Amino acid sequence: MPGRTSDQAPAAPAAGAALAAVTAGLTAVLGGDRVVTDHARRRTYECDGLAAYRVVPGVVVLARDAADVAATVRACAAHGVPFVARGSGTGLSGGALPHSEGVLVVMSQMRDIREIDADAQRAVVDPGVINLQLTAATSPDGHYFAPDPSSQSVCSIGGNVAENSGGAHCLKYGFTTNHVTGLDLVTPAGEQVEIGGKAPDPPGYDLLGALVGSEGTLGVVTSATVRLTRLPQEVRTLLAAFRTIDDAGAATSAIIAAGVIPAAIEMMDALSIEAAEEAVHCGYPDGAGAVLVVELDGHSADVAGEFDDVVRLCEASGAFEVRVAADDAERALIWKGRKSAFAAVGRISPDYIVQDGVIPRTALPQVLRRITELGDAAGVRVANVFHAGDGNLHPLVLFDGSQDGAVERAEGVAGGILDLCLEHGGSITGEHGVGADKAKHMPRMFTADDLAVMQAVRCAFDPETLANPGKIFPTPRLCGERPGRRQGEHPLSEAGVAEVF
Amino acid sequence: MPGRTSDQAPAAPAAGAALAAVTAGLTAVLGGDRVVTDHARRRTYECDGLAAYRVVPGVVVLARDAADVAATVRACAAHGVPFVARGSGTGLSGGALPHSEGVLVVMSQMRDIREIDADAQRAVVDPGVINLQLTAATSPDGHYFAPDPSSQSVCSIGGNVAENSGGAHCLKYGFTTNHVTGLDLVTPAGEQVEIGGKAPDPPGYDLLGALVGSEGTLGVVTSATVRLTRLPQEVRTLLAAFRTIDDAGAATSAIIAAGVIPAAIEMMDALSIEAAEEAVHCGYPDGAGAVLVVELDGHSADVAGEFDDVVRLCEASGAFEVRVAADDAERALIWKGRKSAFAAVGRISPDYIVQDGVIPRTALPQVLRRITELGDAAGVRVANVFHAGDGNLHPLVLFDGSQDGAVERAEGVAGGILDLCLEHGGSITGEHGVGADKAKHMPRMFTADDLAVMQAVRCAFDPETLANPGKIFPTPRLCGERPGRRQGEHPLSEAGVAEVF
Repeated sequence: MPGRTSDQAPAAPAAGAALAAVTAGLTAVLGGDRVVTDHARRRTYECDGLAAYRVVPGVVVLARDAADVAATVRACAAHGVPFVARGSGTGLSGGALPHSEGVLVVMSQMRDIREIDADAQRAVVDPGVINLQLTAATSPDGHYFAPDPSSQSVCSIGGNVAENSGGAHCLKYGFTTNHVTGLDLVTPAGEQVEIGGKAPDPPGYDLLGALVGSEGTLGVVTSATVRLTRLPQEVRTLLAAFRTIDDAGAATSAIIAAGVIPAAIEMMDALSIEAAEEAVHCGYPDGAGAVLVVELDGHSADVAGEFDDVVRLCEASGAFEVRVAADDAERALIWKGRKSAFAAVGRISPDYIVQDGVIPRTALPQVLRRITELGDAAGVRVANVFHAGDGNLHPLVLFDGSQDGAVERAEGVAGGILDLCLEHGGSITGEHGVGADKAKHMPRMFTADDLAVMQAVRCAFDPETLANPGKIFPTPRLCGERPGRRQGEHPLSEAGVAEVF
Repeated sequence: MPGRTSDQAPAAPAAGAALAAVTAGLTAVLGGDRVVTDHARRRTYECDGLAAYRVVPGVVVLARDAADVAATVRACAAHGVPFVARGSGTGLSGGALPHSEGVLVVMSQMRDIREIDADAQRAVVDPGVINLQLTAATSPDGHYFAPDPSSQSVCSIGGNVAENSGGAHCLKYGFTTNHVTGLDLVTPAGEQVEIGGKAPDPPGYDLLGALVGSEGTLGVVTSATVRLTRLPQEVRTLLAAFRTIDDAGAATSAIIAAGVIPAAIEMMDALSIEAAEEAVHCGYPDGAGAVLVVELDGHSADVAGEFDDVVRLCEASGAFEVRVAADDAERALIWKGRKSAFAAVGRISPDYIVQDGVIPRTALPQVLRRITELGDAAGVRVANVFHAGDGNLHPLVLFDGSQDGAVERAEGVAGGILDLCLEHGGSITGEHGVGADKAKHMPRMFTADDLAVMQAVRCAFDPETLANPGKIFPTPRLCGERPGRRQGEHPLSEAGVAEVF
């Protein structure tokens, strides 16, 4: 990946007296093998899945347990040193981008499944547990962990919690936030607190909701209590081929309007079908302007009845071929095209940007037409692969970084796609998070007052802005910054409070 | 209802200079007919559905729109006067209990449904809109508003948001928090901000989750964007009669374990069956130690298949009679017994306390046995009517307030039931909220650090503790209170931050 690289590498032992003090203190307490100062080793953590941003961390701590994390965070708090937590590093928004004069807390060695309570349908896991590892451990009892980002074989549950990860099946099963009922947190002051637990709907503030998706800016999660979902009795999958994206969009709307909630409705356009076909020979129908992959799961009797409806609705919306997977092998082949699409696009273009935006499902046809127009105007090809059921677009903007101005043109189109999302009342990110990459776009989606409320919450947890600084917010608020602010004065009251009189 | 009444009525125009200034200012701006100072009129707002607590508000403002609310809150902020928002006043935890020297902001005249977007399955409503009013308005389009507290024909959606209300169907459909995607909020400083919107999963902090259920302590909601749910194609209901509560509990667990998620699984014990029978002659089977009302809804094909499973599982767990509703009239009769149970208990006992607690579903049999033992030991009868599917108990503790010591004995048993919930990893409230009534129990469920984190968030919104003071937290934190605290010092860092060194 080329592009917005901002490597500011040298940073050897240097980095200032505060970081040196933290490093020395932690080495004494945790031992030298847990505190990594060697530049080559630190450099392996310089980016996450969005390799466009690279920063070598000042020092790396390999945490074994919550006590290690608390000790590290307390040391940072005492010396005013920033810290960033990192799981498997598969994020796509630079959420785990290190700080050159800060501590990177690597959580990936904390990967024990602490408890599986099949009766209560809960598991308690370390943050470094791999998403698919939990499903593997619970499937003998008939359960699985429902959030399924495409990185699920390597990504950590702690990272899923930080970014509120989604996946192909969140239309029916929701995002990570819908599957977390409790968290142990080390606050930026180094306190260890428990939020939530196994029981649903605890009293008091639902801070669990605020923490899931807070991208490491409110503390470091050291344990997660998550829901286990019953493995479905039956899964049925079909591929429907349409002449146009409009027809496929209409089928999507018709299915939802009929009250059916499929486990997944995925759409691919002609360019992404072509790329997938070349790469993995998935045998999708010739002449398709768009395909839908629709999957139903649940109780056998339910699935059978609903599946007939879905076939009928696809045909009524103009599908010229509907292919139903007869067995697991055919089902795998249908998914193979969809799952290989991102990598496949790499075969037809030297470089590409994966955009992530959300629109209301009903706006799909208009927005996709506008994306095509945007690309045509800039001479840039865009392949569309996305979660149609919940309007979560993943346009792949293709370019050749060796050509003059190609990066800029591609970035222009990628930015224009976010404009379209916002114009239609959608969002600048669906499931990849804001991270370092989209902080600059936040003021386009939120007013200054909206952002001030979020920052006030951040200040409540982290007044020194030490927890993953530079992520989410474009201009970090210094919590004590306003001149003449009296102790106890309201941090939100920018607007005069006495306007009535 | 007798009991813990704390009427401190006199409070005429008195109430201090600050309140007088607010009253005068608001009267000038909003007009005298919107600002109620007459004692008899103010007194009509002295309690909510938990009549055990009564406080006559210092002044009452009848808000017409968000601007009225913002003006009122800004006036309160300028003069340090507390304010409490109130919807229909049907809450059961004293969450809308007024402040004798504060402003009660009555939201019930803001009851327009602003927008119904059937395609996007969203509605935008004023906070005073009645829960069932929204369902009535959207059912012609095939939708309804899923949260269904038993007060749904009179309670307001703003109140549902404040208390995160549940209902008989939240096993399948979740609580209010699962049906709110956007809120307009007047912060305690009087700012008007938008949180969320129509699109799912916005970036930044999920403050929506923290606001829903915050019981009016983080500001006043002036608009809610909510999900509309497709009316099910089919609804089927059965009544299963068991000899013992253990058998009914086993049936509940077996149904959930089979992967079926009914819309509702409600349980009644022998005493509540007896009361309902006397009151409404619902014709429940003779000799039942417990009955389950199980309702399935959804796609017709699904419901048919699952319903057979439920019947079989009930019989396998010892049901001696399973009665399936053949039509709407029979369905209504089955529900009549359940829905009348609370009122019916009033016929067999002069007074009762409705408790609200949660336990893991798997602990139902043990906890219900212990409740019986607690009642027997104190010579107090307890009727159990509850949402079995999600472990949300509503024991009715019966007593006769005219007998010496009866109130205390009943309160002892009600408190003991909460102890049982906590012992089993449950919660001190399921759907009625903490309010004024259960603030004292919060430290039994949360550590001091846990509560400090919540209070820090409250301080971020409301450092002067003017928004619904005295609710949720047993000992309100004064946000600037710690001696010698430096500006910018961490509000959470009670535990020394430098322990490592």
